[in-house]
Amino acid sequence: MNYREESLKKHAEWKGKIETVCRVPAGNKEDLGLAYTPGVAEPCLAIQKNPELSFELTRRWNTVPVITDGTAILGLGDIGPEAGMPVMEGKCALFKAYADVDAFPICIKSKDTEEIIQTIKLISGSFGGINLEDISAPRCFEIETRLKEELDIPVFHDDQHGTAIVMAAALMNAVKLAGKKIDEIKLVVNGAGAAGIAISKYLLSLGVKNLTVVDKAGIINDSELFNQPQRDLAKLINKDNHTGTLKDAMVGADAFIGVSAPRVVTQEMVRSMNEKAILFPCANPIPEITYKEAKEAGAFIVGTGSSENPNQINNVLVFPGLFRGALDARATTVNKEMMLAATEGIMACVKDEELSPEHILPYAWDKNAHASVASHVKEAAIKSGVSKLYK
Amino acid sequence: MNYREESLKKHAEWKGKIETVCRVPAGNKEDLGLAYTPGVAEPCLAIQKNPELSFELTRRWNTVPVITDGTAILGLGDIGPEAGMPVMEGKCALFKAYADVDAFPICIKSKDTEEIIQTIKLISGSFGGINLEDISAPRCFEIETRLKEELDIPVFHDDQHGTAIVMAAALMNAVKLAGKKIDEIKLVVNGAGAAGIAISKYLLSLGVKNLTVVDKAGIINDSELFNQPQRDLAKLINKDNHTGTLKDAMVGADAFIGVSAPRVVTQEMVRSMNEKAILFPCANPIPEITYKEAKEAGAFIVGTGSSENPNQINNVLVFPGLFRGALDARATTVNKEMMLAATEGIMACVKDEELSPEHILPYAWDKNAHASVASHVKEAAIKSGVSKLYK
Repeated sequence: MNYREESLKKHAEWKGKIETVCRVPAGNKEDLGLAYTPGVAEPCLAIQKNPELSFELTRRWNTVPVITDGTAILGLGDIGPEAGMPVMEGKCALFKAYADVDAFPICIKSKDTEEIIQTIKLISGSFGGINLEDISAPRCFEIETRLKEELDIPVFHDDQHGTAIVMAAALMNAVKLAGKKIDEIKLVVNGAGAAGIAISKYLLSLGVKNLTVVDKAGIINDSELFNQPQRDLAKLINKDNHTGTLKDAMVGADAFIGVSAPRVVTQEMVRSMNEKAILFPCANPIPEITYKEAKEAGAFIVGTGSSENPNQINNVLVFPGLFRGALDARATTVNKEMMLAATEGIMACVKDEELSPEHILPYAWDKNAHASVASHVKEAAIKSGVSKLYK
Repeated sequence: MNYREESLKKHAEWKGKIETVCRVPAGNKEDLGLAYTPGVAEPCLAIQKNPELSFELTRRWNTVPVITDGTAILGLGDIGPEAGMPVMEGKCALFKAYADVDAFPICIKSKDTEEIIQTIKLISGSFGGINLEDISAPRCFEIETRLKEELDIPVFHDDQHGTAIVMAAALMNAVKLAGKKIDEIKLVVNGAGAAGIAISKYLLSLGVKNLTVVDKAGIINDSELFNQPQRDLAKLINKDNHTGTLKDAMVGADAFIGVSAPRVVTQEMVRSMNEKAILFPCANPIPEITYKEAKEAGAFIVGTGSSENPNQINNVLVFPGLFRGALDARATTVNKEMMLAATEGIMACVKDEELSPEHILPYAWDKNAHASVASHVKEAAIKSGVSKLYK
């Protein structure tokens, strides 16, 4: 199928991928009196006395905005707030279809970090959690960090952590299948934007010890070629300030993760990797190397962002279940424990005997996978003490 | 029924009066490819080229936020943003039930005029129109005026104009029934807040010539006892700077509209009015004088805000149809012509032969009434040249 051409037609037919429905009767005087005036005064006064009741008496408990500034939409870049709306609406549709979360798309017409933070803070009282989406680096780091500090509801930048969570599940299952160990592999991450940095930090926390991160200017190190988040990461993983190209980094690597640019990995590079090489070229929409080319060059396991090949690595596997779990626990944040639980929730969906080089992850449309992520995340929220409902 | 007690129970059961649903299939690879990546890139790029297409390719065309700062919720006053949410959500439910508008409740945690304006402007790209709600005077005037100037979608402060539109329909039908003429009646409006001032200005534009507006400090005039919007209005209607009490103003009046405070009108005042007196005591939840007391004192027609008596005067009759019409026309504003059309749309629902002192308005839950308002408003938007779809 020519997805893009067909999708444009479908969007013109659909005229919206989500819709609001009324959950209460409104057909007579009594109905109006209960759902609206005069009755509604009473739940208002109850919330005034105890604002936490806004999670009991309105839909807030189940409602999450998908918020963008339009600066990093898919791989399309800064196309503007309104132009990002089809993606935001698509995520909202999937939130509902896969995890019964009421999500609502909001685009913010500003690129100013403080203005974006302030806008989200001011409207946060309507929501049970905040999903940040397709906001460009490095601004996205500051926005997420500040909102996490200043709000008492879960805040989650999906491009960073959703990607990291699903990539980690894919890598851990692939490493297991290759008969290797996560703390012994040599890993190369190409692309040090929001996703690349989040993936790198997350995998370090999962036990990866030998990690090289590469950006356009080469292997990242603590020099002026790189921005502050990149230099901070380099201080952790490249203490000797190695320099070099992607080609240099790939020699002898066990695994490659790409969140960078089209066609930057050659078959020669794949051949220079260690045996049972794992490649996740996930640049969107055109990957660093195609599934077919990587396999032909001898790769053991290949996963991409596309649903056209085996092993689609897509954060659709993360955000619905993660928010479902966080909302069900009335979590006050998304912490590390909950993210690790989400990775475990995904991994748990492919049993050891089902694992194969063509099947390292569940399908994105598998509702059991989302339920597994949700229950793992909810439990982790409770255990780590950030649930307001279960203590 | 004890509406308030029962309503609190219902709200705890409902856990939300609205909900988001997914309008597209999401059960397999192809579904995901069309609604989300990779297909969704194409509608994004189409909107980037022509932002107006956000009204064609997303739900924006049908989506309206109901926005408050929580400062003037019902008659409860400044109870805070979260505490206002049950009212906002209730309006959203009615928007959908009566006019198929997808409405979404947003509370803003700020009382700063500029901050509220800026927040709404920054998120306006997600919406087809803006419904402002329960924002206290005089701040609400500035907020609405500025947003109307700076946005190219309809902006409507329901407490002002929704109330004015339905009150005018009630008054014009009542005056007709009393055998009087709108430009000959002596009218008293009590309460010079957002609603009272909007009602007064609107009725002047409909032909009322003899109008006295009263606030807590008495008959409004151009003196320091009154705020600027009140003084501006006084310059139009009280050039001789008359002073006096509500009791003074009521003597010989043909009609009284109350949007003020409980129990400020006595039976003696009603008896001092002209024959075939019309009274709309609409203070919420306790009126200026009860329906029963006013009738006992000889009033010809009485209408209140309550559904417990005949002639409920409720802006629920306005906002669903008004936005339906404005959205269907892809209107760039809500202008005077559209408001007048809404009044006509309501009046058209009670034929002359059906008019009686107990029946001057259609019921709020009558879908035909909302359809009538919508079609009148849409036509007025087109005729007055503010429709982007029909020119």
